[in-house]
Amino acid sequence: MQEKQLFRQFNIQTAEFFPIETQEELTQAVQSLGFPCILKTRFYGYDGKGQVIINCAQDIAHAFKQLGGRALILESFVPFEYEVSLIAARNLQGQMVFYPLTRNEHQNGILRSSQAPFKNPLQTRAQTAVATLLEHLNYIGVFSVEFFVHNNILIANECAPRVHNSGHWTIEGNDTSQFEQQLRAVCNLPFGSTRAHGFNYMYNCIGQMPDRNKILSIPGAHYHTYNKTPREGRKVGHVTICGEDKGEVLKLAKLIDV
Amino acid sequence: MQEKQLFRQFNIQTAEFFPIETQEELTQAVQSLGFPCILKTRFYGYDGKGQVIINCAQDIAHAFKQLGGRALILESFVPFEYEVSLIAARNLQGQMVFYPLTRNEHQNGILRSSQAPFKNPLQTRAQTAVATLLEHLNYIGVFSVEFFVHNNILIANECAPRVHNSGHWTIEGNDTSQFEQQLRAVCNLPFGSTRAHGFNYMYNCIGQMPDRNKILSIPGAHYHTYNKTPREGRKVGHVTICGEDKGEVLKLAKLIDV
Repeated sequence: MQEKQLFRQFNIQTAEFFPIETQEELTQAVQSLGFPCILKTRFYGYDGKGQVIINCAQDIAHAFKQLGGRALILESFVPFEYEVSLIAARNLQGQMVFYPLTRNEHQNGILRSSQAPFKNPLQTRAQTAVATLLEHLNYIGVFSVEFFVHNNILIANECAPRVHNSGHWTIEGNDTSQFEQQLRAVCNLPFGSTRAHGFNYMYNCIGQMPDRNKILSIPGAHYHTYNKTPREGRKVGHVTICGEDKGEVLKLAKLIDV
Repeated sequence: MQEKQLFRQFNIQTAEFFPIETQEELTQAVQSLGFPCILKTRFYGYDGKGQVIINCAQDIAHAFKQLGGRALILESFVPFEYEVSLIAARNLQGQMVFYPLTRNEHQNGILRSSQAPFKNPLQTRAQTAVATLLEHLNYIGVFSVEFFVHNNILIANECAPRVHNSGHWTIEGNDTSQFEQQLRAVCNLPFGSTRAHGFNYMYNCIGQMPDRNKILSIPGAHYHTYNKTPREGRKVGHVTICGEDKGEVLKLAKLIDV
């Protein structure tokens, strides 16, 4: 909720929201926002965890039972055409660099895949919004913001004061990876170029890893396992396919068959 | 010497050479090859170490004094327009992959810089030659061959049964680095694509490292230090500059000022 208040302070659009502490407050807020709306915990939510969609009046009590007892926020459902994220970095001198926009696809609240660079005039608007935020926070390091895009308008969804899953393509697909940029920022080294190479597709491995040799056989594919115990809904690795041509890369992406 | 004999066995041109054990043999061989010619130790030579140029009859005794007592080889001096290297890999199934040719510049017998990809019809001829060699040796892993190019003819200079300094640009400038390719070959994993990205310039840091922040300020530059004690003539690191355009990369390369 605090991040949404911060976005609004800088004229960055967000979903409508209400702070919720009691079931009465929830019932009132649902009436104001209409269906569907989303009840979320204010802290420690990630990957769709700590949130429940409320589709009808009957859902209210159940949702509150699931999440109640913690600080909550009720959000309106934002209609959107697609999602993008902007990864930025700011250093001790206040200099900032921005990566090209990444276009993201979520599934069940978890990032499923990313494509970059997403060349779009929204780049400038996103950069201006994030620059204002970072300056206000006097933030040092890599910072990531997810936006919904509706009618060509950016609606901030959430931010992360760190490297971001949607920026993993920068490891192979950019002059400087987001991880190296974080080190450059906090070690007071000059920033690296954020030039994207060709076209890059990043696929999150959720629940389990795909067949390794199959992935290694895809031209330009990079196989990253986090060596985590496989579990439903858990991010256990990712695959990035880098190539020159968007069409070709997306064709190869279909070979990631899990 | 054995490698030169091997090259010749497969009709790959090399410099003229004679095995040398005594000063008398050296005097005779020099008469046959003419000036200048190069006396080398047959084993353990690298980076210009273990070799002496013989420019005139007076040099013979001195050269033999310097290197004598070991197995030697006298080579004719090959006139050449430029140098290239081919990095290849072969796996347990006998499959082979080849990197694009790299164009190299040496100074005092040490690799000074490399540029890749060097797009040239010689690529096919180099691949054919190296493929024959690797099959004959039943070689598994990454293998590198240096060629002189004279009148558009490849003249094999030396080979290295390993990753090669002139292939360091593949770390950032290729779908698969030569190091990863070595692991894929010996771990029985599928080979990775050897597609080069844009244009890449690799500069060897000899004797000492350049100023780190200066290098990190060059767009697309990657700074590699080997954490070695600086010493004259010692390779202590390298810098790779990656970009889209050859002209731009070579312009940036001039900023590496050591």
